[in-house]
Amino acid sequence: MAKVKISAAPSIRRLPSYLHIIRRLQGEGNTFISGTVIAQELNLEPIQVRKDLSITGIIGRPKKGYPIQALIEAIEHFLGWDSPHDAVLVGAGSLGTALLGYGEFRYHGLRIVAAFDKNPQKIGSDIHGVTVFDNVNMEERIRSLEVTTAILTVPSVHAQETAGILVRAGIRGIWNFTNVKLKVPERVVVQKEDLSSGYAMFCVMLHAKKLEEDGRHGAGQD
Amino acid sequence: MAKVKISAAPSIRRLPSYLHIIRRLQGEGNTFISGTVIAQELNLEPIQVRKDLSITGIIGRPKKGYPIQALIEAIEHFLGWDSPHDAVLVGAGSLGTALLGYGEFRYHGLRIVAAFDKNPQKIGSDIHGVTVFDNVNMEERIRSLEVTTAILTVPSVHAQETAGILVRAGIRGIWNFTNVKLKVPERVVVQKEDLSSGYAMFCVMLHAKKLEEDGRHGAGQD
Repeated sequence: MAKVKISAAPSIRRLPSYLHIIRRLQGEGNTFISGTVIAQELNLEPIQVRKDLSITGIIGRPKKGYPIQALIEAIEHFLGWDSPHDAVLVGAGSLGTALLGYGEFRYHGLRIVAAFDKNPQKIGSDIHGVTVFDNVNMEERIRSLEVTTAILTVPSVHAQETAGILVRAGIRGIWNFTNVKLKVPERVVVQKEDLSSGYAMFCVMLHAKKLEEDGRHGAGQD
Repeated sequence: MAKVKISAAPSIRRLPSYLHIIRRLQGEGNTFISGTVIAQELNLEPIQVRKDLSITGIIGRPKKGYPIQALIEAIEHFLGWDSPHDAVLVGAGSLGTALLGYGEFRYHGLRIVAAFDKNPQKIGSDIHGVTVFDNVNMEERIRSLEVTTAILTVPSVHAQETAGILVRAGIRGIWNFTNVKLKVPERVVVQKEDLSSGYAMFCVMLHAKKLEEDGRHGAGQD
């Protein structure tokens, strides 16, 4: 059971926010950036920033920091965002539509080349520049497009059945926005995007902040 | 600068997926569940599952595992999902519409009580049972609703300006779906939901899987 192990997951998750800040600072005319500046922008510890960036293979220079252009290239190369990556999107409902219009993706090399839906009113239409096809012929169409990555935004009740079709069509990676834990062959990578996880963090942070404020007020009354 | 520190973030992020599995197994008639079964369902190590669940204060019994009902209650209580939590949503575009229709939220106690938009065609309409109001009167309306949590799904270019209005309206927590790092007073909690982070993980996993498969094929040819 060879399972892909990603040890540096939290670091990898932070790389896009680094890229965002660094690009902005480059746009403002900077050629070098220090880990401390990035840390301040993102409310992180400088040592954490340096550790995270080191996974891309780049090392900052004492006092000067990182050369911006090389840093951008190192992060993009590490993430594979320096070459185009084609994908199809299945399920052109409101979440699918939101993803089709998500402007940030073009910075990541992600090109959604086709969308699929079963709604006759959507089939043949164009959403944010992407054509919506009938999902009845999805398997053949994906094969002919030679695309191996899919974004899954169908209602959860159709998730497993749709994943089966995608796998038969040659899809090797599914970015899964449904709340179903998909059963797929071992060769297929599934990245599950779970809004509930983010909401859980939000709730715990709100609660911690409330306790902190209560504590401060309590202390003030002594 | 007292900043809320959440040390157990990855564990917290996994709790909703535990809850999902446990509820399903309860629905199938089980009254106890072992950490090993949960681990198998989610492709995790049993020791990780036991460690994650321990943050809610619950301890499994040797051989029997966890009493399901008590486990559900412990997780929900830890996350604050056992009491209703009202929020407003600002920006009823496609992502906002997707969130208004996200059925899972009702299991988390999250009730979206009002939405705001500036599009005249949306104002006064009802999206998945939630009324869309004009964002011109947003500050007063949020005050009168006495809601302190907001979900921000406006275009990124309006994010900071909108956050300012939310803070003046008494909002203490913002679930931020824009790609802007919001500047808010220290008393306000911001949880940033970043699709790019998930996509970064997905790309690295695809790459790791490809290297693994290439390695296997290479070995086979020797």
